[in-house]
Amino acid sequence: MVHLQNEINEQPDVIRTLLQEESAHAAKIARAIRDFEPTFVLIAARGTSDNAGRYAQYLMSIQARLPVALATPSVHTLYEAPPKLSRALVVGISQSGQSPDIGQVVKDAQSQGALAVSITNNADSPLAKSADYHLYLHAGLERSVAATKTYTTELTAVAMLTTALVGNEALSEQLSTLPQKMKETLLLSEKIIQWVERYRYMERIAVIGRGYNYCTAYEISLKLKELCYLTGQEYSEADFRHGPIAVVEQGFPVLTVTPKGKTSPVLVDLLKQLKERKAESLIVSNDPDAYALAQNTMYLPENLPEWLSPICAVVPGQVFARHLAEVKGYPLDEPRGLTKVTLTV
Amino acid sequence: MVHLQNEINEQPDVIRTLLQEESAHAAKIARAIRDFEPTFVLIAARGTSDNAGRYAQYLMSIQARLPVALATPSVHTLYEAPPKLSRALVVGISQSGQSPDIGQVVKDAQSQGALAVSITNNADSPLAKSADYHLYLHAGLERSVAATKTYTTELTAVAMLTTALVGNEALSEQLSTLPQKMKETLLLSEKIIQWVERYRYMERIAVIGRGYNYCTAYEISLKLKELCYLTGQEYSEADFRHGPIAVVEQGFPVLTVTPKGKTSPVLVDLLKQLKERKAESLIVSNDPDAYALAQNTMYLPENLPEWLSPICAVVPGQVFARHLAEVKGYPLDEPRGLTKVTLTV
Repeated sequence: MVHLQNEINEQPDVIRTLLQEESAHAAKIARAIRDFEPTFVLIAARGTSDNAGRYAQYLMSIQARLPVALATPSVHTLYEAPPKLSRALVVGISQSGQSPDIGQVVKDAQSQGALAVSITNNADSPLAKSADYHLYLHAGLERSVAATKTYTTELTAVAMLTTALVGNEALSEQLSTLPQKMKETLLLSEKIIQWVERYRYMERIAVIGRGYNYCTAYEISLKLKELCYLTGQEYSEADFRHGPIAVVEQGFPVLTVTPKGKTSPVLVDLLKQLKERKAESLIVSNDPDAYALAQNTMYLPENLPEWLSPICAVVPGQVFARHLAEVKGYPLDEPRGLTKVTLTV
Repeated sequence: MVHLQNEINEQPDVIRTLLQEESAHAAKIARAIRDFEPTFVLIAARGTSDNAGRYAQYLMSIQARLPVALATPSVHTLYEAPPKLSRALVVGISQSGQSPDIGQVVKDAQSQGALAVSITNNADSPLAKSADYHLYLHAGLERSVAATKTYTTELTAVAMLTTALVGNEALSEQLSTLPQKMKETLLLSEKIIQWVERYRYMERIAVIGRGYNYCTAYEISLKLKELCYLTGQEYSEADFRHGPIAVVEQGFPVLTVTPKGKTSPVLVDLLKQLKERKAESLIVSNDPDAYALAQNTMYLPENLPEWLSPICAVVPGQVFARHLAEVKGYPLDEPRGLTKVTLTV
């Protein structure tokens, strides 16, 4: 049995566990953050965890009105010239909690008086131990090199912290439905295997998102690189129009993450443009306006709150990448040239 | 005659003009910034200008110790929920000064009391007129859709502002040598045409940078997409190792921007790993440690200060993309599906 498939399937359960076990703790961390009154948030992360940072960038801005910057670790490690961070909330996100560069950013910020929160799946890791507060993911051991359940639990942790920070009942209510929404998403994703062979010889792709789901475009693109060795890139819909759209010729595959919500109009407009260029459109969506514009649709549950949609919307991308890797004959749990823990400076 | 080639060649002259015409003005803006005492910087930009923002992210952090965030325009335009920006320095960068999303970020920040600086090549544009201070690029009309001279003048403007802000004589001295360094870089780039045909059938690429030259990886990658319709992506050396390196098999082309400096050790180490995987290595470099590890080298002048190297290091990338587009038979001044001014929300 393949670890990757198991870990994809475990996501509703580990998210339920995380919500149950850490909600009170998240509320405590939120109180500490409110007391600290940060002027901005600095997120330090790499790889998949950096995409969780991108979710935080939108969620904390929109819901908690906090400006969020993504850290530039080399400024700390190679140039040894950290900026002024005394009024920052620094959030280190890492599955393993071990990458030295992320640890250095958090350490530099703390030495200036910043408040440090870490989010990891290893409570004994250096990052878990050094931060002022640690939110533990409860995801269980992740054996597949390509991260799945640690990614969606990282997003959930970010959603828990932000919800606790703004203290909005409606948001808490919606968050509690997340395990059920994840289960529905997994069920809807079972259809993907029926049409995945069409992409057996696909080598290139562009993955588009906007707003909350900018992170989803990054993470689906990363899965397709890690598991299927595709070349391609994730883009915001706006950045894509500012140049890279030039690559789109007849048959060029573009995967657009387009759930119902504030970004729908610009994304549906892009899908129309892609259709005019005869691109091959794949979509992750629960937006009927988008269905007719796509060759293949990976469905999302209806009534999915937009702010939570990234936690579900990555799932069909994981399933697609997993089946495509199998159809292409690539290993699922140990892609070539990768290791589970990557130590970078 | 091709506008693109002319505009690449004009770069030493327009940078000399910019330094001459705007140094006093940059000093005045720097005084206003010091008086304002921002707690962080927010950069709003799209496309090529966003890559100038990435340069600012490193330069202002390392030299002026200012934390720098890149704006998320949809938070302002689609979600209409701007974060708290009253203590921010907001910098809008745009060749045309016309994109509505960038204008909205600057407007939202100003309405909260932020200090706004714009950098554009159109003194009559909305962005130029709405900001508290405007730094004019003096790049002259850019006719080619793919930006070249407006990019390097944007970087120069960022370097001028930062130099004025830190008031360091040594940096000012180095900045004054930039037009000469650009001229030398153009001369060294004349050799690229001799080996460019090797890449006639290249369709995919990864472009790597780190630290100051993370922006250069982004911008060279963008030129290769706009002009040569390559699929691929720019990465920081560290992010590349955290997953996407899986795509590298025998013959896979990787272009690494590796000037002498603080990032040399990690980049040379990556080049060794790429050699082991039998990748096709192209480098932009003045680092003798890197030469033997590459199939083809695009040379940079010796004695190039690392902090200024991004302004020169993009030039061989522009020249490479320009020749490769010609060898592939693509139009140079008007790539398919692009327009000079892109209006996004």
